Amino acid sequence: MRDHGGDIDTAQARVGGTDWIDLSTGINRVPYPLPSLPQEVWTALPTVAATARLLTAAGGAYQSQAPILAVAGAQAAIQMIPRLSAPARARILTPTYNEHSAAFRNAGWQVDEVATLAALEGADLAVVVNPNNPDGRKHAPEDLLRLTTRVERLVVDESFADAWPDLSLAPRAGQGRLVVLRSFGKFYGLAGVRLGFILGSKTDVAALAEIAGPWPVSGPAIAVGTAALSDRSWAEATVARLRADAAHLDRLAQSANWKCVGGTDLFRLYDTPNALAAREKLAQHQIWTRMFPYSDRWLRLGLPGQPTEWDRLAAALRD
Amino acid sequence: MRDHGGDIDTAQARVGGTDWIDLSTGINRVPYPLPSLPQEVWTALPTVAATARLLTAAGGAYQSQAPILAVAGAQAAIQMIPRLSAPARARILTPTYNEHSAAFRNAGWQVDEVATLAALEGADLAVVVNPNNPDGRKHAPEDLLRLTTRVERLVVDESFADAWPDLSLAPRAGQGRLVVLRSFGKFYGLAGVRLGFILGSKTDVAALAEIAGPWPVSGPAIAVGTAALSDRSWAEATVARLRADAAHLDRLAQSANWKCVGGTDLFRLYDTPNALAAREKLAQHQIWTRMFPYSDRWLRLGLPGQPTEWDRLAAALRD
Repeated sequence: MRDHGGDIDTAQARVGGTDWIDLSTGINRVPYPLPSLPQEVWTALPTVAATARLLTAAGGAYQSQAPILAVAGAQAAIQMIPRLSAPARARILTPTYNEHSAAFRNAGWQVDEVATLAALEGADLAVVVNPNNPDGRKHAPEDLLRLTTRVERLVVDESFADAWPDLSLAPRAGQGRLVVLRSFGKFYGLAGVRLGFILGSKTDVAALAEIAGPWPVSGPAIAVGTAALSDRSWAEATVARLRADAAHLDRLAQSANWKCVGGTDLFRLYDTPNALAAREKLAQHQIWTRMFPYSDRWLRLGLPGQPTEWDRLAAALRD
Repeated sequence: MRDHGGDIDTAQARVGGTDWIDLSTGINRVPYPLPSLPQEVWTALPTVAATARLLTAAGGAYQSQAPILAVAGAQAAIQMIPRLSAPARARILTPTYNEHSAAFRNAGWQVDEVATLAALEGADLAVVVNPNNPDGRKHAPEDLLRLTTRVERLVVDESFADAWPDLSLAPRAGQGRLVVLRSFGKFYGLAGVRLGFILGSKTDVAALAEIAGPWPVSGPAIAVGTAALSDRSWAEATVARLRADAAHLDRLAQSANWKCVGGTDLFRLYDTPNALAAREKLAQHQIWTRMFPYSDRWLRLGLPGQPTEWDRLAAALRD
């Protein structure tokens, strides 16, 4: 398996302790409160009607009337995208989430990793993560829309876009073969349910539905997702809370002489004198963070949730 | 979408009523009791350690030490199998579950539907559902093992094999490129959780893991599946109960002059004078059953669960 955040079990096994705070991911640690679930979401196959309600809620949350497909996480979408057309040449704006490139290579595509939006032009398929993970780089919607006219197909992974609704191209999905991926679990703090969405043209979404097959999403995920995505007031309050908390985390990091080099409101990326030493120090306090194989200075932290988690992080950074 | 059981929402919309008994699937209506779930199965990404515990439980339940992969339902496995090798010529023993053929065709394979085990010989890939759906046809393990030497790859879908452990080739998965699919949701009555398994050679399972990508199964599915698959006494009691109930259902059907033409202990297939009329009569009693596009006489019924469900079915059949 490629390196990922969320590998809290390996940290636990190595350092010991049972009271870890996992900041190695960009998953909101103040999750949407679970609704009570009727028994049939567990026992019965999900119905077409229940899935339709989920898609209506998602279309509302993402402010889009484009055709949409629910899948078992944005990761499941990433696995499927390379099958939308015959293997050719994909260009991916990097550094970014490493699974895009892996999925294309595994499906027989040639993959070029490029550093600028301009270098994506001419690709059979281009991938942009917006805002980007791990550096938070943001691209204006109009720049991406222009790019759709210069590539065969553009895939925009908006896994971290919930806190920046103005950045989203979900309303324009399907135009010029634009495909937009959304993650449910990160912003709603429910990564374990495995839920994500693909928005695109009617043809692309129908092809992806055939690749996914029937019942790709669990009954509990459909029920929880429908409730959460319909709750706009929770989303708005969470956007505001995350923005304040991200600023708070930057201040804490500054006191440890780490420099913020980017991030979103779900995670922050810091330049540290020695990322390995910084991660180990925090691990001794049972706080798990994320390094990247291509940098010995970058450390990525998700945002703590409850006040006690903030206190523990502050104490660890003072140590 | 192809025709399937579990389409209870369409029946409800057409006939009305809110107290339906869905016998249109082969899902056990006395489900494994849900364990209480810790919050982190919802909030966190599933860990490698939690997945390993699930696979250990599955290996125990299926009496196999073969390499094994958990996926989001046997259906998810069916979607992935055609990608194990380049598209060639698949032969499928039919009539059977219609998604096998659809998945191969969608992935660019040529598909031959054949009527006998012998006609599968020579195939690049052969698919046998054992016991079969909808007619319950059973194949002896030794016949299928012999077949592995006469095809490039044999896929045995054991979605309904839990009630017939002696029939299972799970312990031999990986030998001669034998791939075995298992469904969690049917026997355990928890189809909504979306959980299934693929057993095969180390090479095949590694390739399928790469196709599935990280975190294909939800945290709740991992937790529920681990508990259920570890509980051998529940499984043994359920095998006995299903056997008795299947015989009970056959007696009820006989009283309506339906002839049992096959089935497993999770569903029964009946030859009726007029399947459409029989299904409609039961639907008026809010009992939903399954017809097949290729027969106007066959009606398939899952087994009722609670005593009140048996009473309602008996009354409807007397009507």
